[in-house]
Amino acid sequence: MKYTIALLAGDGIGPEVINEAVKVSDAIAKKFNHEIIWTPALTGACAIDAVGVPYPDETHEICMKADAVLFGAVGHPKFDNDPSAPVRPEQGLLLMRKKLGLFANVRPTFTFPSLIDNSPLKRERIEGTDLVFLRELTGGIYFGEKGRLDGGETAYDTCTYTRVEVQRLAKKGFELAMTRTKKLCCVDKANVLETSRLWRETVQAMEKDYPEVTVSYEFVDAVAMRLVQWPNSYDVLITENLFGDILTDEASVISGSMGLMPSASVGEHTSLYEPIHGSYPQATGLNIANPLATVLSAAMMFEDAFGLKEEAEAIRAVVNKSLEQGIVTEDLATKDAKTYKTSEVGDWLVANL
Amino acid sequence: MKYTIALLAGDGIGPEVINEAVKVSDAIAKKFNHEIIWTPALTGACAIDAVGVPYPDETHEICMKADAVLFGAVGHPKFDNDPSAPVRPEQGLLLMRKKLGLFANVRPTFTFPSLIDNSPLKRERIEGTDLVFLRELTGGIYFGEKGRLDGGETAYDTCTYTRVEVQRLAKKGFELAMTRTKKLCCVDKANVLETSRLWRETVQAMEKDYPEVTVSYEFVDAVAMRLVQWPNSYDVLITENLFGDILTDEASVISGSMGLMPSASVGEHTSLYEPIHGSYPQATGLNIANPLATVLSAAMMFEDAFGLKEEAEAIRAVVNKSLEQGIVTEDLATKDAKTYKTSEVGDWLVANL
Ligand SMILES: CC(C)[C@H](C(=O)O)[C@@H](O)C(=O)O
Ligand SMILES: CC(C)[C@H](C(=O)O)[C@@H](O)C(=O)O
Repeated sequence: MKYTIALLAGDGIGPEVINEAVKVSDAIAKKFNHEIIWTPALTGACAIDAVGVPYPDETHEICMKADAVLFGAVGHPKFDNDPSAPVRPEQGLLLMRKKLGLFANVRPTFTFPSLIDNSPLKRERIEGTDLVFLRELTGGIYFGEKGRLDGGETAYDTCTYTRVEVQRLAKKGFELAMTRTKKLCCVDKANVLETSRLWRETVQAMEKDYPEVTVSYEFVDAVAMRLVQWPNSYDVLITENLFGDILTDEASVISGSMGLMPSASVGEHTSLYEPIHGSYPQATGLNIANPLATVLSAAMMFEDAFGLKEEAEAIRAVVNKSLEQGIVTEDLATKDAKTYKTSEVGDWLVANL
Repeated sequence: MKYTIALLAGDGIGPEVINEAVKVSDAIAKKFNHEIIWTPALTGACAIDAVGVPYPDETHEICMKADAVLFGAVGHPKFDNDPSAPVRPEQGLLLMRKKLGLFANVRPTFTFPSLIDNSPLKRERIEGTDLVFLRELTGGIYFGEKGRLDGGETAYDTCTYTRVEVQRLAKKGFELAMTRTKKLCCVDKANVLETSRLWRETVQAMEKDYPEVTVSYEFVDAVAMRLVQWPNSYDVLITENLFGDILTDEASVISGSMGLMPSASVGEHTSLYEPIHGSYPQATGLNIANPLATVLSAAMMFEDAFGLKEEAEAIRAVVNKSLEQGIVTEDLATKDAKTYKTSEVGDWLVANL
């Protein structure tokens, strides 16, 4: 089969980690007789520098025409000190999510046995952790009306959700739960927020369509606690945009494998795959960034966007092998062990596929 | 001196833990020649049962007349399954905060050397943790306009802040930082929210009045991560109501001493002291709840509301002694060690003051 993949490398270490994911994807395609056409496009700070906006129309068209999008990272320190600057890389991210209709962000958190001791949490707390957040990504307070009143002295943001928005996200949650241990947790703040009450009543009404799924409803503050205490007690969690932003980042550090976590954003028109880490500006150009999260994001793309499970498993298997054999970048170094460059890890993966 | 303290025991284990804090406070008062007049009042589920509302006017008047409020916990499982029920204990909490003008919730998180191994985090991650959150408590999305549109199909919540609200909270943060290591972290989501941009610009403008304080600005998702990774890298953190709800609960579990954490809510008319734990309905009446968080909340009251530092230190010292000697309730039991009842712990504290 032939697949067109929009390639949005972005800023900082984005291009370096994307490069390795491309090498591995091409090798997998060759092995399984697929053809990949990569269509590169600009996004983030590099797009601002080149054409003045972080998500150019041309990039949007390339994404819309592709079968999937592979994304690196965006952000540059020169934009960091002034969150109210008129043009910023993150705005491109939000615009891209909205225009591509990427309403569900899929964020797994799992442990790699060989990395478990990297976690700030004790081994017995995290062993067996394998959870997935489905974060709503195109609604809520991110996209509601916001502004100033009283000559700038009062600021406001509006959080809005419609029942339809909740249903389409929750549907993905129920479906995902059916493929796993059939446990779904709806995270809200229904004791305070009207939008959370809409979430809860909508999910409650859907329960009857998935009689095998056990649904629990927990307040966001309680989940923020239990994620640290007993992360392995969760399976699938669904939540709104802002709660998801906070909780998925919290969850990402518990496994000790943060630098390896992939993610997907799925929706109406296409789907996008990206590592959860950022653009890590200090490491730019040093060939030291860990490419595995991006490589594993490509594996998610093969499986979920193209339905190629065997190809995805082959990628995951070689990644596991590299970890077991210690073919890792310096962020995963155990003391005194030799470490490898970004491109060396990619080369090793290709050679050992 | 003579102090009038409104006593809001609340629901569940509230009355039991409050009882021990009263015993210890009376003993301290006697020792230091103060007189305490306790004025009990109803709040929470027990107030709903008795008079139909969770924060009766009579309770409000008792609080307004007192020099401080000592609070247990509210909540009862019979209200848990329906967050949209018209009358609920939490509404009393929100009304109380608003009517008493308790705009700053002070939530310390620190470690007790003897309890450090209770933490889900590794010892080396939490040793030395001693941070304080100042959570804004009477504004933001908790109190903004909320409702339904489109015949119930769309829900909305509004988050609003004024510059003056941010200033009075931030002022407390700067002042607190001055009494500690002079590090202040402003937690926001200024890359997305207009209210956060108001927070950030307001705090930035106040920096010049506190030249000794080093201020950092961090996004809420990054703080949710770093709290788990390096909690001991923080000192004073200031944030808005909803972020504070999530992050203070997350912070509370990292020290391993959650059952011991006190809190204060301070503001315009009075101040209120309460353990951070909830009403723990399953333990009600069993005389097994840990009273130390409430006892330590009373210590905060002596120090901050009445300016009685020596009295506060005496309470903290005897609590430390009880921990070192293993005079603890079953939640803190190390294996095979004898444990004590709620009232026995209180008796021991009184006897050893
Ligand atoms: C950069 C920022 C706008 C973004 C978000 O809040 O969604 C990021 O934190 C993320 O989670 O992808
Ligand atoms: C019970 C609830 C309304 C309350 C809050 O969200 O403020 C609680 O979680 C707290 O933190 O005191």
